Amino acid sequence: MQENEIDRIIDKVITEVTGKSPSGGQNPLSIQNGDDLAGKIDHTILKSDATRDNIIQLCNEARQYGFVAVCVNPCWVRTASEQLYGGDVMVCSVVGFPLGANTSCLKEEETRRAISDGAREIDMVLNVGKFKSGDLEFVHNDIKRVVDAANPAHVKVIIETCLLTDEEKVAACVIAKQAGAHFVKTSTGFSKAGAKIEDVALMRKVVGDSMGVKAAGGIRDRQTVEAMIRAGANRIGTSNSVAIVRGV
Amino acid sequence: MQENEIDRIIDKVITEVTGKSPSGGQNPLSIQNGDDLAGKIDHTILKSDATRDNIIQLCNEARQYGFVAVCVNPCWVRTASEQLYGGDVMVCSVVGFPLGANTSCLKEEETRRAISDGAREIDMVLNVGKFKSGDLEFVHNDIKRVVDAANPAHVKVIIETCLLTDEEKVAACVIAKQAGAHFVKTSTGFSKAGAKIEDVALMRKVVGDSMGVKAAGGIRDRQTVEAMIRAGANRIGTSNSVAIVRGV
Repeated sequence: MQENEIDRIIDKVITEVTGKSPSGGQNPLSIQNGDDLAGKIDHTILKSDATRDNIIQLCNEARQYGFVAVCVNPCWVRTASEQLYGGDVMVCSVVGFPLGANTSCLKEEETRRAISDGAREIDMVLNVGKFKSGDLEFVHNDIKRVVDAANPAHVKVIIETCLLTDEEKVAACVIAKQAGAHFVKTSTGFSKAGAKIEDVALMRKVVGDSMGVKAAGGIRDRQTVEAMIRAGANRIGTSNSVAIVRGV
Repeated sequence: MQENEIDRIIDKVITEVTGKSPSGGQNPLSIQNGDDLAGKIDHTILKSDATRDNIIQLCNEARQYGFVAVCVNPCWVRTASEQLYGGDVMVCSVVGFPLGANTSCLKEEETRRAISDGAREIDMVLNVGKFKSGDLEFVHNDIKRVVDAANPAHVKVIIETCLLTDEEKVAACVIAKQAGAHFVKTSTGFSKAGAKIEDVALMRKVVGDSMGVKAAGGIRDRQTVEAMIRAGANRIGTSNSVAIVRGV
């Protein structure tokens, strides 16, 4: 995708969503550099049959290896928070996961509960169906309600790249940024495909340096993690974190 | 699975969940027979990128062919209810879909909202992770809260058979029945596999005649629908409903 084509879509979406002409960047977020691989990884278990023992093991591993967060389903947020109490590892809850097709009201409530159960980050799923129906105002408000409910916890918006055209990926990132989200994230890992290098690069180009980009979905080895980081990701979601940092 | 083995598991689970010895059947529900195939089909679209136009088409088809219900994600319940207002086709909303791994509180709230948006049936997902962690009381209450919130609308409990052993399938059906649900349902269609004939037969054997059994997930043709009904299903969930009833 050409640079000026990206800029054109960005301007168009900003004007459509806000009714105003585009202004400058938002949400200044320092993007970590350096070699701390574990410090960029959300240690993740989201499969529906994960047990309490799996969650406890996930938390223990996160503490041991220094992962930045554990990412779990809402019913396990409290368990994970208890396990990680007093430490540096954050608990990240998913919201509207993995279809993003519940109501905004529910996403807001799910966020509120997750925060009250101890979540310090929220990974929400874009409402792809409303987005594809052209209801950008719905999508913007859907994200904004989660951002407001999570505040000051950070929100990542999963745009599910595998379901979007390049133009739609750009528009989705712009809406997430306009709605005050802190990260855009490639994939749930539950749809047709996961993170792709070129999507990460495109998303980074669109959001600039003021937001995070999380690559997730199908990331299984260190080589892929490093390629994602080179392409512009500053956070990685994977269930294979331990093998990745141990380099096996 | 042997008949007496099924009975043994049923008694064990009832005693564990209720603290009481098993009593007789509950939830008398007439099971429709006869040749009205369309009247047994939940016309379904649950993919996350379904648009408003897709939902409207689904509703039009449901009315035209006489499907018993349309099954949609929560954000489309109101749209579908408006489309189907005044007719016989029910709107069915999914809850905790498709992972079943949000909190009971959220499932209850999601149910309440869906009902208020016009849903007349609820397809909820069992919390498979809590179930596999042995927390049967949680699972029982999780279902019961949805049943109570939905009342008098009927609730189907998706047990996600592909993730369960035969013994677990039996236990899940018993818990659903004990919690007052009206149907057990095989699959979300978003996990490793869909409905299987032998699972439908097992589930029917466990719940008896007093509950419904819905087969869903990967059902694409009339032959499979008829086999599912012969095995004991009295409701079918499919996205291929029109082709199935037209026999093409």
